[in-house]
Amino acid sequence: MCINLKYKAMPNKGITPRSENYSQWYLDIIERADLAENSSVKGCMVIKPYGYALWENIQKELDKRIKGMGVSNAYFPLFIPLSFFSRESAHVKGFAKECAVVTHHRLEKEADGLKPAGRLTEPLVVRPTSETIIGDAFANWISSYRDLPLLINQWANVVRWEMRTRIFLRTSEFLWQEGHTAHANMEEALERTRMMLEIYAKLAEEYLAIPVIKGYKTPSERFPGAVDTLCIEAMMQDRKALQAGTSHFLGQNFARASQIKFQNAEEKETYAWTTSWGASTRLIGGLIMTHGDDNGIILPPRVASAHVVLLPIIRKDSERGPVMEYVETLKRELSGLPYAGRQLEVEIDSRDIGGARGWDWTKKGIPLRVEIGPRDIAENSVFVGRRDKPHREKISLKREKFIAEIQNILDDIQDNLFAQALSFRQDHTSRIDNREDFYAYFTPPNPDKPEIHGGFALSGWCGDAACEASIKEDLSVTIRCIPFESNTAENRPCICCGRSDGRPVIYAKAY
Amino acid sequence: MCINLKYKAMPNKGITPRSENYSQWYLDIIERADLAENSSVKGCMVIKPYGYALWENIQKELDKRIKGMGVSNAYFPLFIPLSFFSRESAHVKGFAKECAVVTHHRLEKEADGLKPAGRLTEPLVVRPTSETIIGDAFANWISSYRDLPLLINQWANVVRWEMRTRIFLRTSEFLWQEGHTAHANMEEALERTRMMLEIYAKLAEEYLAIPVIKGYKTPSERFPGAVDTLCIEAMMQDRKALQAGTSHFLGQNFARASQIKFQNAEEKETYAWTTSWGASTRLIGGLIMTHGDDNGIILPPRVASAHVVLLPIIRKDSERGPVMEYVETLKRELSGLPYAGRQLEVEIDSRDIGGARGWDWTKKGIPLRVEIGPRDIAENSVFVGRRDKPHREKISLKREKFIAEIQNILDDIQDNLFAQALSFRQDHTSRIDNREDFYAYFTPPNPDKPEIHGGFALSGWCGDAACEASIKEDLSVTIRCIPFESNTAENRPCICCGRSDGRPVIYAKAY
Repeated sequence: MCINLKYKAMPNKGITPRSENYSQWYLDIIERADLAENSSVKGCMVIKPYGYALWENIQKELDKRIKGMGVSNAYFPLFIPLSFFSRESAHVKGFAKECAVVTHHRLEKEADGLKPAGRLTEPLVVRPTSETIIGDAFANWISSYRDLPLLINQWANVVRWEMRTRIFLRTSEFLWQEGHTAHANMEEALERTRMMLEIYAKLAEEYLAIPVIKGYKTPSERFPGAVDTLCIEAMMQDRKALQAGTSHFLGQNFARASQIKFQNAEEKETYAWTTSWGASTRLIGGLIMTHGDDNGIILPPRVASAHVVLLPIIRKDSERGPVMEYVETLKRELSGLPYAGRQLEVEIDSRDIGGARGWDWTKKGIPLRVEIGPRDIAENSVFVGRRDKPHREKISLKREKFIAEIQNILDDIQDNLFAQALSFRQDHTSRIDNREDFYAYFTPPNPDKPEIHGGFALSGWCGDAACEASIKEDLSVTIRCIPFESNTAENRPCICCGRSDGRPVIYAKAY
Repeated sequence: MCINLKYKAMPNKGITPRSENYSQWYLDIIERADLAENSSVKGCMVIKPYGYALWENIQKELDKRIKGMGVSNAYFPLFIPLSFFSRESAHVKGFAKECAVVTHHRLEKEADGLKPAGRLTEPLVVRPTSETIIGDAFANWISSYRDLPLLINQWANVVRWEMRTRIFLRTSEFLWQEGHTAHANMEEALERTRMMLEIYAKLAEEYLAIPVIKGYKTPSERFPGAVDTLCIEAMMQDRKALQAGTSHFLGQNFARASQIKFQNAEEKETYAWTTSWGASTRLIGGLIMTHGDDNGIILPPRVASAHVVLLPIIRKDSERGPVMEYVETLKRELSGLPYAGRQLEVEIDSRDIGGARGWDWTKKGIPLRVEIGPRDIAENSVFVGRRDKPHREKISLKREKFIAEIQNILDDIQDNLFAQALSFRQDHTSRIDNREDFYAYFTPPNPDKPEIHGGFALSGWCGDAACEASIKEDLSVTIRCIPFESNTAENRPCICCGRSDGRPVIYAKAY
């Protein structure tokens, strides 16, 4: 693990408090924790080692869960011929405004430098998502109902040319997985769509400690070309919503566009039913904005790149030998312990920079900081600080007890972070049935701080796109999802037009 | 694991024998084993699940070995601004003829369809390799000798626009890892260059059972912009060489181009010394061409996606219950055993298709096929076929003995495959000191089969690029490497000009 400890900062140094400027706070803690940075390529980020380690952990965990659902990994081309891309009309309309297009295949010297040369007969689109190129392969692979279901996943980079970017949340290039499945009938495809959303919901809640609401997107918010889009939505600390994963039921739209046909058991040729679903590096943004505080990021132990840092306290040269030996031994013992499907990751930081050392690790969100000096060794104890507690709050634990309890302590931090986030969301979610209250809820009391507002509103929607659009126009508030439970919930008046047979939906400002 | 068993073929059905047409054999067995296929995008391949599982195993193993050398993973942009790409003159010259160029960032409707629109002020090159874009980040990250060494690796897709492509060996898009390191002095950078080549050599030999020769490239074969390129070269079964991994000492060339500077301990500003090193999906091509036979691919057990297939033999319906139960129990027991850093992967194939079933798995290269029928159950034994032995050769083993021995049997297959490949290379490597013999060695005896020739020649080279070029011109034979041992070997006459102080080098035709 390469941990860059360039910022030997004091408490809060260089971190804008959330209350002052939430957007700046987000950028500051990413920089101070050394997670990622903007690159010299407009809209593209560099994911630095400490941030990439989080992505590797998310990948491992999600990959295991996806494979557990019978899905196999494969890899498809980065480039999509323009003619393929255009096959599904809603799809191409949705992505045409934001895609990188390759038009040449070499460079040639000209008077004023190198110029693109070798024009391609057909331009290639850098994949913003792969339904059309994977659909082309599926059409070749599938001929009979015996070839179904076909369950494929790909880990890849994708490009969506974004004008306003934000590290992890919205970048021109990002990393993700995209699953693509084909089925013999609608029921099975629908079941798969729900099944994979459930995987995302569990990953978010169990692994990232991010509570989510599962539901359907409204037609206007659907994936371009989908019949139905299911999503998980989380609340960030500025009370805005973050879509953290989506699963699309594509009906036969893409099968028709790509000619994915099969002979059914009655030897009749039929279009397959397809799904697609994805989760991306955006999850890291969600992680930061769900748990971070004014001192830096906070990593839930299961996804943390390292779980504990040992901080030897050495005041005299003569103490160095015995303290370091004690610390090294403790590291060896801890590193042998299993935690969340891997081994405990333990760092030692023996820099001689005083209190700034502890703050460095606080910024980096490491779950446990353990100080060990000659007095602790004499008492056979360790001095433990938890990232989910105030920085100065530390407890002394007998060494043996610490070793015996560390997995429980980490689980406790994990549970605590989830509980905090859940209660934050509950505190900022209101049932609102009155249009005036609704507008007040979403109107910032202080125009200098346009980000401060109520949070999530659980209110009625009559199903009319015009009502949805009018709310969006007025308040920049959108319907994040129609929660699954809406099906069985009682009707509520539409918050826009007042019609009494509205379904309860989640309204929020969103990333 | 999604294993497509579409081809219920009989022995050799659909596989061109190697002796008839080696190139076609290569394509046939890739198709029959369902590893990969050409996509609709010129030069880009689709890596299918059974092939991708091999890449995942290679990735896991190589990633572990790279991290073991203190290197951290990170991720950098797919796109390189043209101005960055042009900074190192030899580098841009080497790649300008084969790179995909993004010139537009959206699509617009015109009369005859969609057209690229939104021209970029500066074209972006899709990375063919990332020295220049990573160098830009390194320049920001490094300011003092305390920031060094910086040891970074990236797993990524890269694009090199190839006119003549060949699945796994040469494709326009391929997957790889590329390591990039920066050091305070030349010695350390040189040591890192050698160290990482050693990692590739060990991966090839210990994990893929591919024997390799380690050496230096001649100046004409170096990576564009490198001061020195180290490589591992393997012999394929058509006696041609395959470069299986390279490690480049970049001197201060790229540091100068990207302004990677640091203050040394004496507070003097100095350019860093950098290295880069990569291995790619090409390794899968090497695997296929080193071990495959006329019946299909042969997977060395350590990299195999599955290690053993259980084939229940059921002749009457009444036998199904007890046989399947026995087979399922055996699978559970075997799956619990560790092998090569993971668990044994066991498949069950209960299709009722007779002998074709065994042949299917032979084509797919699975190390062990195990037949189990009522008679075997009565005798508490299993009937085992090894992929490295003739298809019909099977031995009966007591069940308990099989379970106790399976890891040893797999290791024996692994060792056997390596030994076979090594002896093949030794049999087709000759010391040649005479120009006439050398030309005869590389001239195909049968002009209809231009691929048949001697193999590797260990012969002298005086160091003159003209001699190297003349041999290449006459025979399409290149210097694959100057083996490390050449340093201490006795002089040999240059095979081209006859000068007596030549160094022994490996000449071969190459992929």
